[in-house]
Amino acid sequence: MKTVFSLVLALCLFSAPLALAQAPGAKGLMLPGDMTSELADVAIDAAIKKAQEQGTLMNIAVVDAGGNLKAFHRMDGSFLASIDLAIKKAYTARSLNMPTTTLAEASNQPGAELYGIEVTNGGMVIFGGGELIKDKDGTIIGAIGASGSSVANDVAVAKAGAEAVLKAFK
Amino acid sequence: MKTVFSLVLALCLFSAPLALAQAPGAKGLMLPGDMTSELADVAIDAAIKKAQEQGTLMNIAVVDAGGNLKAFHRMDGSFLASIDLAIKKAYTARSLNMPTTTLAEASNQPGAELYGIEVTNGGMVIFGGGELIKDKDGTIIGAIGASGSSVANDVAVAKAGAEAVLKAFK
Amino acid sequence: MKTVFSLVLALCLFSAPLALAQAPGAKGLMLPGDMTSELADVAIDAAIKKAQEQGTLMNIAVVDAGGNLKAFHRMDGSFLASIDLAIKKAYTARSLNMPTTTLAEASNQPGAELYGIEVTNGGMVIFGGGELIKDKDGTIIGAIGASGSSVANDVAVAKAGAEAVLKAFK
Amino acid sequence: MKTVFSLVLALCLFSAPLALAQAPGAKGLMLPGDMTSELADVAIDAAIKKAQEQGTLMNIAVVDAGGNLKAFHRMDGSFLASIDLAIKKAYTARSLNMPTTTLAEASNQPGAELYGIEVTNGGMVIFGGGELIKDKDGTIIGAIGASGSSVANDVAVAKAGAEAVLKAFK
Repeated sequence: MKTVFSLVLALCLFSAPLALAQAPGAKGLMLPGDMTSELADVAIDAAIKKAQEQGTLMNIAVVDAGGNLKAFHRMDGSFLASIDLAIKKAYTARSLNMPTTTLAEASNQPGAELYGIEVTNGGMVIFGGGELIKDKDGTIIGAIGASGSSVANDVAVAKAGAEAVLKAFK
Repeated sequence: MKTVFSLVLALCLFSAPLALAQAPGAKGLMLPGDMTSELADVAIDAAIKKAQEQGTLMNIAVVDAGGNLKAFHRMDGSFLASIDLAIKKAYTARSLNMPTTTLAEASNQPGAELYGIEVTNGGMVIFGGGELIKDKDGTIIGAIGASGSSVANDVAVAKAGAEAVLKAFK
Repeated sequence: MKTVFSLVLALCLFSAPLALAQAPGAKGLMLPGDMTSELADVAIDAAIKKAQEQGTLMNIAVVDAGGNLKAFHRMDGSFLASIDLAIKKAYTARSLNMPTTTLAEASNQPGAELYGIEVTNGGMVIFGGGELIKDKDGTIIGAIGASGSSVANDVAVAKAGAEAVLKAFK
Repeated sequence: MKTVFSLVLALCLFSAPLALAQAPGAKGLMLPGDMTSELADVAIDAAIKKAQEQGTLMNIAVVDAGGNLKAFHRMDGSFLASIDLAIKKAYTARSLNMPTTTLAEASNQPGAELYGIEVTNGGMVIFGGGELIKDKDGTIIGAIGASGSSVANDVAVAKAGAEAVLKAFK
């Protein structure tokens, strides 16, 4: 990954903040300000670092502002089921513009306002571990999903990824 | 099946434990240590024997370490719905590295930590009857799913299959 | 499997042909004359024996008269894609009451009578390797699908399984 | 990613080849010899480097020996359709133990031996860009799929990823 980004870095050093730089050739093909490869890697690396501190094994997925998969990583030995869970957590967060913990409160009890929503959209995840990724202006540019341990651990890992992106803008 | 395995037996008798022997020709095409045809049959035969002792009619599925179907058997008169249930129980167990009874506790009540997980991964089974299959070193090499009677009976049948594999290593 | 069938054998020896014997407890739950566990194993064992003679690695699936999976076996090292292919070949054959080689002729060329049929039924297989299984009176009691090598080899393996069932009635 | 692997490196430097090292905590949860996080990143980084040399924008997916997604990366500005294409190319290659270019020859003409195979397994890709990943002994440990440009470019990118893994073992 270093090769990719040192090139990007060289091109952008004097004209744009690092975290916003799209790869050469992408102009006109993606929205300005959308999730970049650089930012997706920042999020995944920070999430993995957090998982290592926890001693957990995670699947981590990042989607862009369009809700489409941008990057994914499955740590050695982590759950196979979490491939789909991590991707769906990221999609669920972005597609409802809220962390999946917030969705859980609105959907995981009979009679709750959105009870049953999980069967739509090809399967949504209604427990924690999906977090929004925003830029420095608060615009949603994607989301991150983490799956592999308790919900509390998954949430912490996803948040670590999202926060690292925010820091990359500063 | 006897023909297959007597050949395997003849080739392996003096060089490797019976239960680990991959069929001739499989070298390089499957990882060493993964579920073999022999072991899958050991699991299914022991599961059927247990079902007969119970007087139940079962569907039994065995998946390998990658969660892919290795062998399946539907006893005469057993539920058609249990074809999919047995296969999904085996996949669910392996994909979360836990018996589906453990998953049930975490997911089968509104508000439970993983409530709603069953709609992911193309449909997971969140009640008992899926058990991990391990080798003599404790490495997960697959899983077995049983479906056809009460959950308690399904669990006992799946466990009988998994335990028979463990014994085959000794 | 020997344990299962010696019991069945003991019960049925003086009252019914071996190959037709349903397992105890199945009465009223499946149609008389439908594919039994015994026959499914006869088909799979014969198919595996043929594959070994060929030096090929096969996935073999048997469905009953209702087109529902009865038994499945994946030989060590055989294709993962052939899990689905073998099951779909068996289903395709039974659901159209013809070998999949016959279907191929009617569907695998633009303008052919059934061109495009493969996208129906959740995906049909329009090349050889699915064969009907009949009883001694010519009644279709299921089908067998084989996948793992050239189409010619797949067809030979599936035929070996179907023919072994026919012999079991005699 | 550097943080993860420097830890792995420190643990394994004197006991095992770098490229084979599984992350701490994975023992018993994945088969020895299966695709690691390290190797998946080696493949993706080499594939991206090749795409940059070509001036193309690629989606790159890596699956393990069981055909399950291990890592994924979408370059800025690359096709959204290629998310699914890259993942399916990798799965198709592993599930048939051949590059998808080889499958193309057998399936992309009416009347070809495997014509119609693309509708099975939830959708297979029958053109180039999926390549097997092998270890130093020739054992298949996964596959890589690349999608984003002409088939020739996709193939070259996928091959660059697979070859980089092989070099990592030496």
